[in-house]
Amino acid sequence: MPIPENYAKAIEALQATLSPDSVTTDAGVLTKHSQTFGVSKGLGHTVVVFPKTTEDVVNIVNISRENRMPICAYGGGTSLEGHATFSDTGGISLDVSRMDQILEIHVEDGDLVCQPGIQWVKINEILNEKGIPLFFPLDPGIGATIGGMISTGCSGTNAVKYGTARGEWFINATIVLPSGEVIKTRRRARKCSAGFDTLSLFIGAEGTLGIVTEVTIRLTPLLPTRVAVANFPDVGHASKASIEALNCGVSLQCVELLDKYSMAGLNSYNQTMRQWPEKDSLFFKIQGATQVFIEESARILKEVVERNGGSAFEFAATEKEADDLWLARKTAPMAGLALHPGARAMITDVCVPLSALPQLMTNIRKDLDASGLPAYTLAHAGDGNMHALILYRNEDEEKVVHDLVNQLAQYALELDGTCTGEHGIGVGKKKYLVNELGSSTVELMKQIKQTLDPLNLFSPGKLYPDYAKSSY
Amino acid sequence: MPIPENYAKAIEALQATLSPDSVTTDAGVLTKHSQTFGVSKGLGHTVVVFPKTTEDVVNIVNISRENRMPICAYGGGTSLEGHATFSDTGGISLDVSRMDQILEIHVEDGDLVCQPGIQWVKINEILNEKGIPLFFPLDPGIGATIGGMISTGCSGTNAVKYGTARGEWFINATIVLPSGEVIKTRRRARKCSAGFDTLSLFIGAEGTLGIVTEVTIRLTPLLPTRVAVANFPDVGHASKASIEALNCGVSLQCVELLDKYSMAGLNSYNQTMRQWPEKDSLFFKIQGATQVFIEESARILKEVVERNGGSAFEFAATEKEADDLWLARKTAPMAGLALHPGARAMITDVCVPLSALPQLMTNIRKDLDASGLPAYTLAHAGDGNMHALILYRNEDEEKVVHDLVNQLAQYALELDGTCTGEHGIGVGKKKYLVNELGSSTVELMKQIKQTLDPLNLFSPGKLYPDYAKSSY
Repeated sequence: MPIPENYAKAIEALQATLSPDSVTTDAGVLTKHSQTFGVSKGLGHTVVVFPKTTEDVVNIVNISRENRMPICAYGGGTSLEGHATFSDTGGISLDVSRMDQILEIHVEDGDLVCQPGIQWVKINEILNEKGIPLFFPLDPGIGATIGGMISTGCSGTNAVKYGTARGEWFINATIVLPSGEVIKTRRRARKCSAGFDTLSLFIGAEGTLGIVTEVTIRLTPLLPTRVAVANFPDVGHASKASIEALNCGVSLQCVELLDKYSMAGLNSYNQTMRQWPEKDSLFFKIQGATQVFIEESARILKEVVERNGGSAFEFAATEKEADDLWLARKTAPMAGLALHPGARAMITDVCVPLSALPQLMTNIRKDLDASGLPAYTLAHAGDGNMHALILYRNEDEEKVVHDLVNQLAQYALELDGTCTGEHGIGVGKKKYLVNELGSSTVELMKQIKQTLDPLNLFSPGKLYPDYAKSSY
Repeated sequence: MPIPENYAKAIEALQATLSPDSVTTDAGVLTKHSQTFGVSKGLGHTVVVFPKTTEDVVNIVNISRENRMPICAYGGGTSLEGHATFSDTGGISLDVSRMDQILEIHVEDGDLVCQPGIQWVKINEILNEKGIPLFFPLDPGIGATIGGMISTGCSGTNAVKYGTARGEWFINATIVLPSGEVIKTRRRARKCSAGFDTLSLFIGAEGTLGIVTEVTIRLTPLLPTRVAVANFPDVGHASKASIEALNCGVSLQCVELLDKYSMAGLNSYNQTMRQWPEKDSLFFKIQGATQVFIEESARILKEVVERNGGSAFEFAATEKEADDLWLARKTAPMAGLALHPGARAMITDVCVPLSALPQLMTNIRKDLDASGLPAYTLAHAGDGNMHALILYRNEDEEKVVHDLVNQLAQYALELDGTCTGEHGIGVGKKKYLVNELGSSTVELMKQIKQTLDPLNLFSPGKLYPDYAKSSY
């Protein structure tokens, strides 16, 4: 129940409360905060604020509530499902970029305390600079911030080894609730059995239940890694090899599947200093503290690959070679985009049980081919999480893309999977949620939303479907 | 708001709805369901029911609600904080022991679907019998059931490698809410970013928010393990060795610390076929798919131990030797009890950041020694999770024990830890919760309880402190 006629009063109150450089209605800044990769999926914001402390956030939330002006937290701006936009209300964009400090590092405990605006990449750079042999292993898009990573329930290529944001990487968080109350979800011990973990409510809630202002994250030892690549006759064989590799006792950090279209894209793009066999391929990242571990791991993995019809097993024996090989995996998502200058990209993800990945990829490939649009698929094969990059140039093609995205979500649901493995629901995927989770589960989510945010001011229009029972 | 005068009517309705052998008011059965290790921490139940299906549970919950008769789920009966009892209301004990089946095993996906009454030990036995080289790694007390493990937010010795119930081991669950609604929290993909994970609300909620009736659990490869033991001059050195071992790149499944009192207890108990040095000792469980991995791990670990003042490093080169060594760790908790026939035991746990473990153990040891009561402490050192077993024989001594438990919780909180790392809050630890989590966090927990269970019929008297703002 936003009240737009109050917004001017709210902006005045924000200006009176925060430092002058912390509140802006500059059109360029507003536009930037409403876009993802240059594409806006909703209306713009009315004002952008840059808090520095938890107290600032409390003040902003109180002004938002008193004036019924919606509020939406903004982290790295890397989310892909319109999380940063307002659908029809306008409101306050709360940009956490000035809350980007590490506050404490506890090396022996293997954790650190930080603010929500710091990027995971930056955290790992700082640890590296300080010579601390620990790192934070969740690796969504470059530029993602800790607050956004919590709110999206993120993961990345490292999920095979380390799991996701829904695991135990976030030990505690300080969170400002829609009421203006501040909670700290728990203390700093690694384990805690003192009731349900309130932090888990906010992981994947996409900013609809609270705004994170401080976080204790768990770190893990940084170990030497190496990379191996192999080709397979088809996605089915690659997928079977992936499953066997997960179970063979080698410490695998990543198992990535690039299909033959993506490999062809790499060749056309020609930025990896070599030509690749245009076959469905697995990229493995292996961990090993010593050379003995690494060599034994490579030996076992090669057997697994060959037993599953793989060929051209290539193992990077040095760190430099490993970086070169992995560059192909890192380049793949952008190769498709670069090959079609002027085209726009729809990037989407779904996730299915491991054994269903070949069926999923076969199904959607037929539709992609039939559409005639350039499209590249790759998968975090060790998690059953598939991404598609589909390119389009005009509104007609955009409609086709939306049909393809719908079709992909349907395939995933038919295979007991989810419409999103790591990108979140945002605006675009709300329509799948009841089908995926059932109306009772969605109604429970809405009840919790109603309990915490009865005025529906925190990120309205995101996550909760528009058409189920309750008022959200 | 239970209404005891309705209970007879409720029991009639239960008898009319369930099969005759599924409802009992037999005094012996009622007593058994109100006790933990033979000790009752609350009043008894009025009736015990044995559902077989989700539909049975829905019917029972509806009868409970219609008659305002509280309901408390009963799993393996292994919890230590009075979870199975009613404090002052009486009610329905819902025993899930007849819901103990594995419904589906998905070997390639690495998961299985089961009912809540099956024990984790049984699941692993069945997988072993079927020759499936996977297992479920959460290992609380023998006899614990999947439903209870979710509700307690359990863990065990394997948490070093695999984390806890709060991690990603429970993929989804079917849950009956106090309203009688049935939710299935999500589908079966390993990763899901479709909103916050409603299942996490029920992990550690101690049955106060819902009753689990079906669960998909994630499995992990079963790898060969070996055991190593070493002695240290004091707990501080052992703790430092433990931290370095966690970070050295060896695949450690467990790191257990038995203090010199526990080692002396093992010698007196004399059930491990050998005499042990009575020193603070670490027991490591190492994983390795091949002999190369195991030998390299042992080599690295020995260096870590010696660098931290450890001595008498002993490595079990065969599986048989490993089992013999680990027997000491398994025997330790019971040795103290066995050495004092007729004594009762208070078993409690707290958890602190890793580096604070020596301080915690030093502090409480002074108090334990001053009390004159026999007491043994051991720790899941890789998690900072300490257990104390304190023996007493009469009411005066029992009061001393309660003071010691209070003191231990206070020490843990002063060290930024928790009053319970894996046993839960139940009845006895409610009083620490506001101090530990803050009143705003506890109030949020109560709001969620109020939203889901407005009549306070699910496990009343557990978890939520009696003295904070809201009505629970």
